[in-house]
Amino acid sequence: MSVVEEQARAARVAGRVLATVSRAVKDDALVAMADALLHRSAEILTANAVDVAAARASGTAESTVDRLTLTEARVAAIADALRQMAALPDPVGEVVRGSTLPNGLQLRQVRVPFGVVGIIYEARPNVTADAAGIALKSGNAVLLRGSSSAAQSNAAIVAALREAVAKVGLPADAIQLVDPSTRETVRDLMRARGLVDVLIPRGGAALINAVVTESIVPVIETGIGNCHIYVDASADLDMALDILINAKTSRPSVCNAAESLLVHAAVADEFLPRALGALAAAGVTVHGDPAVAAHSSAVIPATDDDYGTEYLALELSAAVVASLDDAITHINRFGTGHSEAIITGSLSASTRFVAQVDAAAVLVNASTRFVDGGEFGFGAEIGISTQKLHARGPMGLPELTSTKYVITGDGQIR
Amino acid sequence: MSVVEEQARAARVAGRVLATVSRAVKDDALVAMADALLHRSAEILTANAVDVAAARASGTAESTVDRLTLTEARVAAIADALRQMAALPDPVGEVVRGSTLPNGLQLRQVRVPFGVVGIIYEARPNVTADAAGIALKSGNAVLLRGSSSAAQSNAAIVAALREAVAKVGLPADAIQLVDPSTRETVRDLMRARGLVDVLIPRGGAALINAVVTESIVPVIETGIGNCHIYVDASADLDMALDILINAKTSRPSVCNAAESLLVHAAVADEFLPRALGALAAAGVTVHGDPAVAAHSSAVIPATDDDYGTEYLALELSAAVVASLDDAITHINRFGTGHSEAIITGSLSASTRFVAQVDAAAVLVNASTRFVDGGEFGFGAEIGISTQKLHARGPMGLPELTSTKYVITGDGQIR
Repeated sequence: MSVVEEQARAARVAGRVLATVSRAVKDDALVAMADALLHRSAEILTANAVDVAAARASGTAESTVDRLTLTEARVAAIADALRQMAALPDPVGEVVRGSTLPNGLQLRQVRVPFGVVGIIYEARPNVTADAAGIALKSGNAVLLRGSSSAAQSNAAIVAALREAVAKVGLPADAIQLVDPSTRETVRDLMRARGLVDVLIPRGGAALINAVVTESIVPVIETGIGNCHIYVDASADLDMALDILINAKTSRPSVCNAAESLLVHAAVADEFLPRALGALAAAGVTVHGDPAVAAHSSAVIPATDDDYGTEYLALELSAAVVASLDDAITHINRFGTGHSEAIITGSLSASTRFVAQVDAAAVLVNASTRFVDGGEFGFGAEIGISTQKLHARGPMGLPELTSTKYVITGDGQIR
Repeated sequence: MSVVEEQARAARVAGRVLATVSRAVKDDALVAMADALLHRSAEILTANAVDVAAARASGTAESTVDRLTLTEARVAAIADALRQMAALPDPVGEVVRGSTLPNGLQLRQVRVPFGVVGIIYEARPNVTADAAGIALKSGNAVLLRGSSSAAQSNAAIVAALREAVAKVGLPADAIQLVDPSTRETVRDLMRARGLVDVLIPRGGAALINAVVTESIVPVIETGIGNCHIYVDASADLDMALDILINAKTSRPSVCNAAESLLVHAAVADEFLPRALGALAAAGVTVHGDPAVAAHSSAVIPATDDDYGTEYLALELSAAVVASLDDAITHINRFGTGHSEAIITGSLSASTRFVAQVDAAAVLVNASTRFVDGGEFGFGAEIGISTQKLHARGPMGLPELTSTKYVITGDGQIR
């Protein structure tokens, strides 16, 4: 039996306990977890300094080092997020559907935890505490497979969280760290069908694709966002410009940032000079088709690869389209099914765009940056699903649950 | 490009049309499909006779031949089922969740079709029309991969259905039959990630396990039911006997039939003689532990394999347990997460059983045979999911849909 399988078996046992404890106990655990992080913050920062030094020594990009780095303020913010989870409603036990059947049977469909959730994620150590908190609140045990670059930080965080969980009388094995030093443990997680109920990969496209294709444990695909802003013929062009700049530049490294601009031919001559000017001023490199390039010598010729790329940087692909239909076709071809926006004054254009664009979220006259569990009011988010099964879009606590039918009778037979 | 891939691409195009047509058009199609089956019933019966003759010639069991056989009455019943689907509410467009965010954005989570659904199933030709109808009503194109033993019947049925769909102006490729003569086509379906949104295998354990482990297309696991009847210390024993006999013998070949009996030690001496007598009278062979065998020489010694077996026949495993906890542990070890029943007069026993047994459906004082989309009032059922992701338990029309977030603003940026 592999170490991961042993961990998964221990997690199943812990999960059975979590599944039936009251919300009050789980909330006590979350508060204790927050307290433990603060109490042990010196240890956590020391461990983190080791990871950060190793990352710098191996020449890691400063932006990645920044995401890896913890400070006293960041640890406090992580603890605060756990405290906020305690205030969220418990999804477990919610009656989703209920009726009395003609034969008198009482039928109830009730939310129950999955059991064991596996999260495979990259550098940021805040995900460790976040994912542990969300899993615990939704009644699930969790196996956390972080990246080796955050190994010391994650170990220190999980040690604190396990101590807190045990302190309120819950099994420490509800939260376990999986060895990040070898790819074998990812493989073991992907093969733990029957022990792990769902795997959620969070990270780059390569990680997500590998898990999606190799895992025999069910997977919820998250996060790759090649998001478009389509400026329709009837758009308010001031609004379009504000939304474009916000969606592209307010935080270019996140999955709900815009990566591609489509402009209806009827407004291209009016909109593109303004847009290209504003994008250039914001430091955005534009990869455009000839109709876009005609408006600025700074535009780099775009290939199909550009239209299919999630830059996660100050780069943008752009094209002029002849019609709303062409915009929809382009988006359904190149998009990743994350978040797609139309800027329009036309009711019929917005209706068609909403109906025909195939994505987790479609937006009318709003920035793609709003597609986020926090913005949606979910209070906690474990990721943004870009698949259609089980959960689509931002996933909050209910998305980490399954359901069970409870049928109560007094001797009915069929 | 494989033939299946070509079919899947055509299905995607058809699916985009189906996704946006009104309920009225879909209902017209369902009625036309029913009419076409009746109109072409002579052809369908002729084709079916070829399949039946081939099955008999190859020595197929009579029970399987019976499930393969169509009659005029059975074709009429299949047509009737399609007509009934037309009367069901359309799941597409249902607003699952909706609110106005603090910044004025209107958030709606709306049901949308998956796009393309693949069904891999065994002998019964009625599944062909049923699955086509359910897929169409839920706005999905469908790829039907039936068994080679029903090849002629399925071809005749699908020809009629496609003609009907085309007649109301919908794309015929919304319903396509996948070549059943080679295993290659199952493999091709399992690799059609991005073209097929979900695969639903319906059939025996071997088929389902193969699809679950090999497919890179998301799968909804269905149907294997090793269902238990647990007779608690406080059970009404007359009720327990009625439910046991009903759950085991009313239709032994279906997944919600009982396969295993657990009896609390406190009532074993009183209950088992009656139960074993009634089971013997109904022709049921019992595989029991020594405590069960002590009550009848007809009991065959049970192995762990017996406790793990879905007999789908007049056979039953049986054991005496020392406590409710032992019953729950046994069920969670050997059960398949389908339907599990407790017969009890104790509120605390029923509460613990319901909370701790890990299954799609748990029943208190009722036969496992009620776990069925028809009995639940769903009107149509595509199978019974025994997994936790997306759908668990009987799957009706809403379970064949995903959702999409629609966010409407007037220029909001973040």
